[in-house]
Amino acid sequence: MGNDLSVVNAARVSLNRNSETFQDQDEKLIKYLLTKKHTSPFEHVVFTFLVKTPLFIRSQWMRHRMWSYNEISRRYTSENIDFYIPESFRKQADNNRQASIDEEIDNINIRDGFISHSKSVKNHISDTSIYLFESYKNLIEQGVSREQARMILPQNMYTSFYGTVDLWNLLHFLELRNDSHAQYEMRLYAQAIEKIVESIVPSTIKIWKKLKLTQ
Amino acid sequence: MGNDLSVVNAARVSLNRNSETFQDQDEKLIKYLLTKKHTSPFEHVVFTFLVKTPLFIRSQWMRHRMWSYNEISRRYTSENIDFYIPESFRKQADNNRQASIDEEIDNINIRDGFISHSKSVKNHISDTSIYLFESYKNLIEQGVSREQARMILPQNMYTSFYGTVDLWNLLHFLELRNDSHAQYEMRLYAQAIEKIVESIVPSTIKIWKKLKLTQ
Amino acid sequence: MGNDLSVVNAARVSLNRNSETFQDQDEKLIKYLLTKKHTSPFEHVVFTFLVKTPLFIRSQWMRHRMWSYNEISRRYTSENIDFYIPESFRKQADNNRQASIDEEIDNINIRDGFISHSKSVKNHISDTSIYLFESYKNLIEQGVSREQARMILPQNMYTSFYGTVDLWNLLHFLELRNDSHAQYEMRLYAQAIEKIVESIVPSTIKIWKKLKLTQ
Amino acid sequence: MGNDLSVVNAARVSLNRNSETFQDQDEKLIKYLLTKKHTSPFEHVVFTFLVKTPLFIRSQWMRHRMWSYNEISRRYTSENIDFYIPESFRKQADNNRQASIDEEIDNINIRDGFISHSKSVKNHISDTSIYLFESYKNLIEQGVSREQARMILPQNMYTSFYGTVDLWNLLHFLELRNDSHAQYEMRLYAQAIEKIVESIVPSTIKIWKKLKLTQ
Repeated sequence: MGNDLSVVNAARVSLNRNSETFQDQDEKLIKYLLTKKHTSPFEHVVFTFLVKTPLFIRSQWMRHRMWSYNEISRRYTSENIDFYIPESFRKQADNNRQASIDEEIDNINIRDGFISHSKSVKNHISDTSIYLFESYKNLIEQGVSREQARMILPQNMYTSFYGTVDLWNLLHFLELRNDSHAQYEMRLYAQAIEKIVESIVPSTIKIWKKLKLTQ
Repeated sequence: MGNDLSVVNAARVSLNRNSETFQDQDEKLIKYLLTKKHTSPFEHVVFTFLVKTPLFIRSQWMRHRMWSYNEISRRYTSENIDFYIPESFRKQADNNRQASIDEEIDNINIRDGFISHSKSVKNHISDTSIYLFESYKNLIEQGVSREQARMILPQNMYTSFYGTVDLWNLLHFLELRNDSHAQYEMRLYAQAIEKIVESIVPSTIKIWKKLKLTQ
Repeated sequence: MGNDLSVVNAARVSLNRNSETFQDQDEKLIKYLLTKKHTSPFEHVVFTFLVKTPLFIRSQWMRHRMWSYNEISRRYTSENIDFYIPESFRKQADNNRQASIDEEIDNINIRDGFISHSKSVKNHISDTSIYLFESYKNLIEQGVSREQARMILPQNMYTSFYGTVDLWNLLHFLELRNDSHAQYEMRLYAQAIEKIVESIVPSTIKIWKKLKLTQ
Repeated sequence: MGNDLSVVNAARVSLNRNSETFQDQDEKLIKYLLTKKHTSPFEHVVFTFLVKTPLFIRSQWMRHRMWSYNEISRRYTSENIDFYIPESFRKQADNNRQASIDEEIDNINIRDGFISHSKSVKNHISDTSIYLFESYKNLIEQGVSREQARMILPQNMYTSFYGTVDLWNLLHFLELRNDSHAQYEMRLYAQAIEKIVESIVPSTIKIWKKLKLTQ
């Protein structure tokens, strides 16, 4: 709902003015609003996304409380379960407790009783996910309630949700989540959303990007 | 943005379901959501209104903090000033500190030095508004800053604002503001908004009205 | 922060009044405020809780977006991990997709290749949790980043968070979460919180409970 | 409610740590949180203010929607009415539509029928306020409802409200309202609040001020 013109018209109600088309010089007003943190004109532009993402990303996402959410509930349904299996696994950073580094780990040793063997991390995560899914299905088939059985499902399980947010709070989301401090998987979502939003409010995104560079 | 179908599809994401058209039986789901106060499915339907209203109604309105607002600023402009002059004036209720009663007051005595004369309340409010407007213009013409000169403008001056709100918070607004405890002028706005909203989400409004009657 | 007296004094600012002590007749005012959904006087009473709860309860909890949260991050630390292992497991309800029933399941059949054996659900969940914890530790020890390794941890893992909320939003939380539609584990938390809150704002809780019964 | 230590303990729950006293090195953490816009640890520190301010400042203030407000209602009471009469009046800025300049206006010409005489702006505002107050009292005495009679009261009338806000949103308020773009009268309130807050969370305010200077 809305576009760059909605932003400037909302701002110009303070001068009792309104315009029919977005003019080049309106970008100056958008720059002023962003610089002075005049948030409200951006709040009349609203987006709804349908997101599919692993649980551990979902939990980071939903810390953004100015979004409205509706999510699949594993109390209601045990269908359509699948898992995020990364192609590659990153090493832990030494100098940053929070981060990973670009260097990858391909294989790890798996201890199986007295025997230890090498296995790709991807296969290990994949096998474990399948094992847990089978274990979950078994609990369900034998009558355990969905709301309890789900506790054994891991955090790489996918979930789906509708998320509705205004443009100001979306810019705040993009600033925090498409940042070098954010987890790689989170950044991918932020980048995908930025592209969608850019096609709808190109002037706002253009100026917002420039301002970030000069901060 | 959105309609009755958006509400039920947002709710049904919890079951991993989606539908293309609104069915009659979907009203049962809307009733369930309203009854159980499942607010989030209604938050994906969003409205923007352009409102013109006197200051004393604006202040009541803006207590609703889940709306996004952009309002004309009397720091920016001294143009397009007009006033709400009621056709009739209601008497104070004796048994309810907050309320007025339907009985009207037509004329009051105005003291002018030693002389007292009768005048309609409407004319008195109108004359006072004109006097204050002229006084304000005089201050502006002689260079007093708009941000200070405005302090002499009365609360029946009209203001304009954009207000954006989701359907759930709009229902909450209508419940409080189209209520017998609300001021008559406020109720008129709430009733006008209810009609607009009814044309966009007829099933939600129909069921919401029924539920209010049975509470 | 605050108590029953804070509520009535916040409400009475509208009459320009203030009192030093809570009087018995102030309960009438609290009843009026609750009945008419005058939320703001309750918003000046604020609580902070330190909560330890399994992930699947945390996710329900954090849908309440008017709380402020700070949570342990598994990007930062791989220490102090433990799991919720229920003493008993409830059966799925047939007539309510969302719910469980009081009847319990003690043992299930576990298929292990060609062999099937009986095992208590509790032991199965416990063994699986230990297996996943060991698997996680192994990934960490061999250098996989915490932010990726955690994806294999199940949703019965405990998390900890600070949650701050005002009294009005807390009452809304208790209404939804100490309800027959809420998951049993969630209700236990809601009941514990209700007891704590009752000791601090006894009049508000007393009247709120009465009003719920008569709805 | 809360202090500098509450902020760092809320932040450190993410590492599963807690401390009993605020250490000098904790200021580094506060700086990091402010720089990276990690808002949530500041949300567990909460302030309640009792504010007396003219209506035109109140309206700016209440645009901050993350505060909780309870305000005197002129539907309920016609008592304790007084007005803000500035000692001096600022001229309108030529190059900034929104602002005033430091230069003052002492006297203006008042037209009274055919006669024009010089009068100090202060006396003119004071006389007009008294006239409107007497006019309002007259309406009330003759039975006009308070909710309608108040429409003639000007925007320099004082109002009172309780405002409750968390530390993060208070810092945002101070940033916007103790700014050269804010109206002088608004800045006075922001400065008074900053002093109060500084005495309670001195480290947070110290670092926040430094960061503003380097932006």
